[in-house]
Amino acid sequence: MSMISLQSFAVGQWIDPAGDIKTLKSAVTGKDIARIGSSALDFAAMAGHARRTGGPALRDMTFHERAHRLKALAQYLNERRDALYELSYETGATKADSQIDIDGGIATLFVFSSKGRREMPDGHVFIDGATEQLSRSGGFLGQHVCTPMQGAAVHINAFNFPVWGMLEKLAPTLLAGMPAIIKPASATAWLAEACFRMIVESGILPEGAVQFIAGHTGDLLDHLACQDIVSFTGSATTATMLRSHPGLVENSVRFVAEQDSLNASILGPDADPGTPEFESFIREVVREMTAKAGQKCTAIRRIIVAEPHLGAVRDAIVAKLEKTTTGDPRAETTRMGALASIAQRNDVLEKASIIATEAERVFGDPDTFLPTGSGLSGGAFLPPMLFQCTDPDSAEKVHAVEAFGPVSTMMPYRDLDHAIELANRGQGSLVASIFTHDPEVARRAVMGAGAYHGRLYFANRDTGKEATGHGSPLPHMVHGGPGRAGGGEELGGVRGVLHYMQRTAIQGSPDILTGITGVWTGNSTEIKKDVHPFRLKFGDLEIGHTLWTESRTVTLDDIEHFAGFTGDNFYAHMDEEAASANPFFPGRVAHGYLILSFAAGLFVDPEPGPVLANYGLDSLRFSKPVIPGDALKVRLTAKQKAVRNDEYGEVRWDVSVVNQDDEEVATYDLLTMNAR
Amino acid sequence: MSMISLQSFAVGQWIDPAGDIKTLKSAVTGKDIARIGSSALDFAAMAGHARRTGGPALRDMTFHERAHRLKALAQYLNERRDALYELSYETGATKADSQIDIDGGIATLFVFSSKGRREMPDGHVFIDGATEQLSRSGGFLGQHVCTPMQGAAVHINAFNFPVWGMLEKLAPTLLAGMPAIIKPASATAWLAEACFRMIVESGILPEGAVQFIAGHTGDLLDHLACQDIVSFTGSATTATMLRSHPGLVENSVRFVAEQDSLNASILGPDADPGTPEFESFIREVVREMTAKAGQKCTAIRRIIVAEPHLGAVRDAIVAKLEKTTTGDPRAETTRMGALASIAQRNDVLEKASIIATEAERVFGDPDTFLPTGSGLSGGAFLPPMLFQCTDPDSAEKVHAVEAFGPVSTMMPYRDLDHAIELANRGQGSLVASIFTHDPEVARRAVMGAGAYHGRLYFANRDTGKEATGHGSPLPHMVHGGPGRAGGGEELGGVRGVLHYMQRTAIQGSPDILTGITGVWTGNSTEIKKDVHPFRLKFGDLEIGHTLWTESRTVTLDDIEHFAGFTGDNFYAHMDEEAASANPFFPGRVAHGYLILSFAAGLFVDPEPGPVLANYGLDSLRFSKPVIPGDALKVRLTAKQKAVRNDEYGEVRWDVSVVNQDDEEVATYDLLTMNAR
Repeated sequence: MSMISLQSFAVGQWIDPAGDIKTLKSAVTGKDIARIGSSALDFAAMAGHARRTGGPALRDMTFHERAHRLKALAQYLNERRDALYELSYETGATKADSQIDIDGGIATLFVFSSKGRREMPDGHVFIDGATEQLSRSGGFLGQHVCTPMQGAAVHINAFNFPVWGMLEKLAPTLLAGMPAIIKPASATAWLAEACFRMIVESGILPEGAVQFIAGHTGDLLDHLACQDIVSFTGSATTATMLRSHPGLVENSVRFVAEQDSLNASILGPDADPGTPEFESFIREVVREMTAKAGQKCTAIRRIIVAEPHLGAVRDAIVAKLEKTTTGDPRAETTRMGALASIAQRNDVLEKASIIATEAERVFGDPDTFLPTGSGLSGGAFLPPMLFQCTDPDSAEKVHAVEAFGPVSTMMPYRDLDHAIELANRGQGSLVASIFTHDPEVARRAVMGAGAYHGRLYFANRDTGKEATGHGSPLPHMVHGGPGRAGGGEELGGVRGVLHYMQRTAIQGSPDILTGITGVWTGNSTEIKKDVHPFRLKFGDLEIGHTLWTESRTVTLDDIEHFAGFTGDNFYAHMDEEAASANPFFPGRVAHGYLILSFAAGLFVDPEPGPVLANYGLDSLRFSKPVIPGDALKVRLTAKQKAVRNDEYGEVRWDVSVVNQDDEEVATYDLLTMNAR
Repeated sequence: MSMISLQSFAVGQWIDPAGDIKTLKSAVTGKDIARIGSSALDFAAMAGHARRTGGPALRDMTFHERAHRLKALAQYLNERRDALYELSYETGATKADSQIDIDGGIATLFVFSSKGRREMPDGHVFIDGATEQLSRSGGFLGQHVCTPMQGAAVHINAFNFPVWGMLEKLAPTLLAGMPAIIKPASATAWLAEACFRMIVESGILPEGAVQFIAGHTGDLLDHLACQDIVSFTGSATTATMLRSHPGLVENSVRFVAEQDSLNASILGPDADPGTPEFESFIREVVREMTAKAGQKCTAIRRIIVAEPHLGAVRDAIVAKLEKTTTGDPRAETTRMGALASIAQRNDVLEKASIIATEAERVFGDPDTFLPTGSGLSGGAFLPPMLFQCTDPDSAEKVHAVEAFGPVSTMMPYRDLDHAIELANRGQGSLVASIFTHDPEVARRAVMGAGAYHGRLYFANRDTGKEATGHGSPLPHMVHGGPGRAGGGEELGGVRGVLHYMQRTAIQGSPDILTGITGVWTGNSTEIKKDVHPFRLKFGDLEIGHTLWTESRTVTLDDIEHFAGFTGDNFYAHMDEEAASANPFFPGRVAHGYLILSFAAGLFVDPEPGPVLANYGLDSLRFSKPVIPGDALKVRLTAKQKAVRNDEYGEVRWDVSVVNQDDEEVATYDLLTMNAR
């Protein structure tokens, strides 16, 4: 490959390396591959550009509009994956490693796009939780809402997954409505830059939504204030430095850290050799040791096994490691590629030697090891290395020192509590896995270890081939963990989006809340019109439009007829004496489903029109019994709308059924699909 | 009063002041009132006691059990309020001030008790959000759960609300299942100690659940690790110091800060003199300036008013301040008492003099002021002081310097955007209020200012007397804000409880998830029994118990009959041609409510028994149309149980209605009340 000059992208301009320029080398051959340096950048201007140009443009869009941009971006990158794969080999990654990075990153964009459209409103304010009634009459209410932070999100990414690491932070940030300034790790920055360049060239994002620093962050952090966020992935050392930065501390700048941790995997007490769980445990441990040459923040660093099975586990792992080909990542037979750099390899060797003071090496000798392939002498290769620590209770280093490479340590446990205790000795991790088929083991593991781990992964014969793996963070699930893992949290669907928004408690009258959220809040003004709301197209239907129906009296005949027709002869409807003995009923009462059915009979407008279907109902509560002679009428109010596609949208209706004394007997949300 | 020796409570022992003892003085008379000093404490032992004794005891209880303890505690304190009121006068508080502190604190316990029972499970694991389907077949699922952190919660409280400040942190901590070590501010520690002593003497909490430091925290922070939490309320200076503490930084110890901020109140553009909003704005500003002598972290520090109304607002505020009696807090005519200490008074005077460099003082001269009452010459009294800043755009100090006393600054705005800009100049606050009757003003305020403020309070003629006030944090709503307000968050119902828990992403098979949560997860094992589940008492009903019904064929006659009976003649049921033109239906289809009604007819066991009532239904979705000739059958599975009272409990059933091809046509949660 010819030498690449990595450009930064600042205030809408591509800027060449300048000042303190460094040369980056191929992890595979050791040859020079790229030049990097950001001294020419005006970091204060970048922060200002994000705040003044990118932020307002993104905030002008609704969540759904931003979600659509994410999908377009995912499609755009998906069509250009091959170029990224080519660059990825030079980072030491095999094709399988690159799939995790490149395809995994693009998939994350797709998932956030989908979640944005399904779980967030087609508006500007995200509603967080239920309305709180703060006064007796309901005239003063509380509602939590989230709005985008108005600053810049600074993303400081790790070297191991240059594409996924960038996109997993970018997706929730953009969906939230915040602009990002991305600073990739230098070691593999050429891959991140290539992907970032595609994002800019796509033209899908508004001006100022993304900027890119190829090099160091200069004085950027000194310019951050209360609306900015720093989201970091990397080592504990760097995290500690950033977390203590005076400007961040004084301005309470939100800081999210995701650090490497001493992740554990436990072979469950029920998972004896010969069980499916034992087999999948061995496969998973070997996969985690060798995938991405062990450079995964979620990789299994501690293998926790019932003492009697330690030998069987060791033998099974070693047998598989012996068949693992390490070498040229481009070769199809290669199972494990190179580490990201010589510096990284040296660091791993140093950490492995510390672990070796407490554990015996049972596989992998770096001194005699040679990678498979030619022209690799300058590459950052290492063999997988398996250690065994027989006294993990008194050991310290094996629970605290992470060799960020293909290195893992086995240790024995006496019983499940001891296994949990050992897993927790890591003082906080991103993920722990437990291979068990026993739900009670799982329950005890969650109660004992949940507080120490951001994710607990349970694999067994039932999860089988569909299981996504110990080491794979998924966009649906939170990624991050307490203590050594950094105390941060990312992803987890909408949860990850909310990290880039401010939650605000709103207090006010029903009409004020309706005005803010765009969702009709109970007790708000009812808008009366001459037209039945079912006759209005999606776009013409106004939030708050209310229909009050005529009333219908429920007779004992109705109840008996309904019982006979449906077969629901529950005694509360059919037996006066038994019904009277029931603590909730004065005597025979109408079926709940009769109330619902009569209500529909009262509010439905039968002729063909914009309402296409009733597709469901939420939060139905029967609040007062209906007895023979009660006269029911219904209030139907347009509560919320969301476009589904070009042809129709979803309408949520607030429905209240009241009796002749205006007492509510039933309330629910009715869901219809309406033509646009 | 005689001199009080404030005791600490550590590792189950009351411990006298020792070492570096300080003397605390009455805010009203200046006389010595208490001695304080914590040098005798073994802080590492305290942390260990919380972790090893308090934590396990609390975690053994369910959320409901802990909620019941909170209620008992609230009742116990409520019966002993008088003694606390008596001690509160010496802090400078009037009776009205003490109500906020003492009654407000007890009310917070009641609300958290209630929320714990209504919104959290009667179990040990809190379920966070919906199940995520992570594989096509549904055999591998994701679920977020929260479990209690296994360390100690260190509460560092402010001097202004010694009781509320302690209880508002304690309630969510205990409900979460974490033990607390409480360190009150020294200035008013005698009131906190008296309340804490009641808590211990009540015997309601288990050993180790609460400890108390009367004095400094010594080396406590050096002993904290990844499972501990520090929750702080107080000044920005102290927060910055704590936040940078090396032990906290290195171990990613969760740190929550709630700091004083430059809270603003905006008189809306529609709230001209003469409107109800104008009147309530004036009342609220004066109340916020004088309540607790302005020593409220939420008090209005900046009064933002449309330029033409600045004079009218000033005159109205001054007229009320002139009638405000400041002096002996025990006197019934007193509106404003003393500040907490002479040191506090001096600090307020210093800060007011800084504000005076940018704003003119229009009311309140501390040099000529004398408090009303006798024996007050040694007290920490100040008059309310109103400033006016006519050029708030170029001013800096009025947006940044907080005089934590009865001090507030008026400033003019040109239009709503300008008002929002000025409110945001505080760089993050706990609360901003807007007095407006216009929902569009409210919407714009949320979009423009939401990200800068933890709470936005809208008052108008509709909220009227029920409104709880700009300055009152409520247990239902989050309290905290970005930037200058500390970036933390407390309260907010269950949200506040989760700050003391770890969220963990769980991945596994349906059975594993059911075992962990105690809630039947879709695709889990169906437990078949000879008995109909409706015949089992609440306590005997097993989660997972499943009934499959016989099937019933839906005929066109059924559909027509149902339409005629209910009056629901929607064309999709009645008109073959029109129904066929609908994008969702192949032709005439059964009513959704007919499906529900027939399903009930199939699964209901009619005779009197433990099932008392169907009280509602959640998340109903019609997933496939039912056409004439389809045969329906139902699966009914016991999904979740929660005791309501001694007589009955709530049962949630997972219901699936399928057709003759085993395709789901409807799914929902059915809710019944079952006798115990």
